[in-house]
Amino acid sequence: MAEPLNIALAGLGTVGTGVVRLIETNAELIARRAGRPIRIVAVSARDRSKDRGVDLSRYDWEDDPAAMTVREDVDVVVELVGGSDGPALTLVRGAITHGKGLVTANKAMIAHHGLELAAAAEQAGVALKFEAAVAGGIPVIKGLSEGAAANAIDRVYGILNGTCNYILSTMEDTGADFGDVLADAQRLGYAEADPTFDIEGVDAAHKLSILAAIAFGARLRFDAVETMGVSRVKAADIEQARALGYVIRLIGTAEIDRSGGSPSLFQRVRPHLVPFGHPLAHVDGPTNAVVAEGNFMGRLLFQGAGAGDGPTASAVVADIIDIARGEKGATFSMPAGELEAMEPALTGHRLGRSYIRFTVHDRPGVLAEITAAMRDANVSIESLIQKGDPDNDGEVILAMVTHEGPESAVSEAMRILEGSDSLAAQPLVMQIIGE
Amino acid sequence: MAEPLNIALAGLGTVGTGVVRLIETNAELIARRAGRPIRIVAVSARDRSKDRGVDLSRYDWEDDPAAMTVREDVDVVVELVGGSDGPALTLVRGAITHGKGLVTANKAMIAHHGLELAAAAEQAGVALKFEAAVAGGIPVIKGLSEGAAANAIDRVYGILNGTCNYILSTMEDTGADFGDVLADAQRLGYAEADPTFDIEGVDAAHKLSILAAIAFGARLRFDAVETMGVSRVKAADIEQARALGYVIRLIGTAEIDRSGGSPSLFQRVRPHLVPFGHPLAHVDGPTNAVVAEGNFMGRLLFQGAGAGDGPTASAVVADIIDIARGEKGATFSMPAGELEAMEPALTGHRLGRSYIRFTVHDRPGVLAEITAAMRDANVSIESLIQKGDPDNDGEVILAMVTHEGPESAVSEAMRILEGSDSLAAQPLVMQIIGE
Repeated sequence: MAEPLNIALAGLGTVGTGVVRLIETNAELIARRAGRPIRIVAVSARDRSKDRGVDLSRYDWEDDPAAMTVREDVDVVVELVGGSDGPALTLVRGAITHGKGLVTANKAMIAHHGLELAAAAEQAGVALKFEAAVAGGIPVIKGLSEGAAANAIDRVYGILNGTCNYILSTMEDTGADFGDVLADAQRLGYAEADPTFDIEGVDAAHKLSILAAIAFGARLRFDAVETMGVSRVKAADIEQARALGYVIRLIGTAEIDRSGGSPSLFQRVRPHLVPFGHPLAHVDGPTNAVVAEGNFMGRLLFQGAGAGDGPTASAVVADIIDIARGEKGATFSMPAGELEAMEPALTGHRLGRSYIRFTVHDRPGVLAEITAAMRDANVSIESLIQKGDPDNDGEVILAMVTHEGPESAVSEAMRILEGSDSLAAQPLVMQIIGE
Repeated sequence: MAEPLNIALAGLGTVGTGVVRLIETNAELIARRAGRPIRIVAVSARDRSKDRGVDLSRYDWEDDPAAMTVREDVDVVVELVGGSDGPALTLVRGAITHGKGLVTANKAMIAHHGLELAAAAEQAGVALKFEAAVAGGIPVIKGLSEGAAANAIDRVYGILNGTCNYILSTMEDTGADFGDVLADAQRLGYAEADPTFDIEGVDAAHKLSILAAIAFGARLRFDAVETMGVSRVKAADIEQARALGYVIRLIGTAEIDRSGGSPSLFQRVRPHLVPFGHPLAHVDGPTNAVVAEGNFMGRLLFQGAGAGDGPTASAVVADIIDIARGEKGATFSMPAGELEAMEPALTGHRLGRSYIRFTVHDRPGVLAEITAAMRDANVSIESLIQKGDPDNDGEVILAMVTHEGPESAVSEAMRILEGSDSLAAQPLVMQIIGE
């Protein structure tokens, strides 16, 4: 058997210790598959004394992860420090400069600096791989960049954040409101102490921008992802949606828009209504799922565990095995210089059906005002549910679904109603995805 | 850009012409992704004069595909002739001998001769790839052999035959009986004129044996797949299953059985009852889906188009792109010599719930005889449905679901009842899969 592939591991949180455990547990199998053993030579983390439940004494300890990038006995640096910039970015740049292969689970760093890093890795002739950055244990980066490589892909979408999906599907099962479920999720470890990145859709936007670059051969544009999280979804929305035949899911969607002159890039993360018959409607709990539509393969679905130490470690080690096999791959499925610069797509002309939830004061004339605004904006209403009695504040929920029409019309209706004292809160608009 | 990768295409049926169309349509994109153009230099088929809807005049025509294997300008031979032996096998052996890479969609050939061919390809230092042999456009070979490579996988199962799935889900939707739906499927092109390989489960068994070898690192044992097709499933079974909360799907399951001394190989293709809540219950029409369970990644699901010229061509060309990128891969995820020889697993000790359908003569004592046989074999009955009125022959359908127990007990009950003149036909036993 060939020489081992030597790796150094920076960051020993749940994913880092998961990687250690995986490499130790499956060592023999991995060596058979990779054609050579994978050997951890050095590890690094902030706190050396912390008990992580794995025996690290057989590996060299580096107080400064930068030391790993200059060790002659290290082939691949595994960055699991986290954070889009700071120490993680310094480490990755250093590793590439020193000719080390680089494996990371860091979606924020790839979303912000992926193009620069890919170009640097190409120039240095080293691998830069990040399967674990998107959808945890699901090999969707590989699935798109290699499995679907023969296809022009015009659309990729899916459930990219396990925390949000856990919250929405638990709200669905229990009827509880957002805040209560979030608190439970934090207690159970499904949501972080500061859950902002997850629940406001930023984490999903990181992942979506990476998928879009790979699927479309487009330059990464994380800055252009239109993002709305799940914190405004109420139990009442989930109840109305169910009555109408839908579940609510936080969906990231990226499309190439060819309606203008040159192709432009549509990227959106938002809660959507998903019809019961759609495969994504059955994705519950912290599961992730990604759908890609290719011009020859048709619709392809990947589904699995979107987070957790085991699944994420599985993706990290799959990347390491690729490198051990001598299969570096192109970072975004093609050389960075080949990626096409695309402007963000306009969205007003997009056709679709929308769900709109109003919280209104319970008094005469309110319904007339809202329906008049819809008429004036040329929005055609398919169905409307006013939910029983007003609450203690004298407010009622009014939910409607529109017929298919341009998004600009719905925006216009919202503009007309802006500041109206009939409304007790800002309306919530959610798109409905097709079968 | 680097030199083109030159390919020669043997077999110009729907998949072969699909490959030509794909390579022509997506040529520019493929060159960006592969880092070099993919160029068809020669084609071959039995009938040169046939109109295939694509212009083949720009490619050399070879009457004898063997000529492709000795052309100096050919890097990769694509075998789409079909058949486990005969001309396809001769062509593939010849290509490998002459140092050509080989891409094929031929599941029968790989199931029967995969080990021999993998060893030959390794020795010659050429790629042997067959993504299109399993589950059409779904990159499941790559997903298991690379994406899930860090995991010990103990179980892989799924819907592997689009024809059977189309028939079962259409029976479900229409209430029609097997024969009528099959005739429709043949008219619509979803089933072949001779559908035996599909409906008797042989095609699914070919695919399952390939998946098992890759997932488990086991030597291929197509001969040991226990196979039963869908031709005995009646509309009444589907109706009963639905009433009990299940759909019926032809499922191929492979597992490593560690209950004995050394690990043994369980491989079975059979119609199963699938609970509504399971992801496979929502796989309708000619779609395929594969689930793999790994010790770190958890449960992973791949779903997509299982057949058709576009999806199959997508998988064939993905393999060609891998070769163009210099990524040959190990044929069964590890060198052929590393694959472990496993004996077929015994099945009697397997625990599970079963559905049993009896067709009985409508007369006193029949139910007593059947339930006594169950008692004597120690099979515990969970529920029992006797369907209304006898048909014209005085026969009635009696369906039951057992509590969990060993398969040997159900077999013993069937043995006791064998030859009983209460039974108008051989009972049908189907396993029920868990959530």
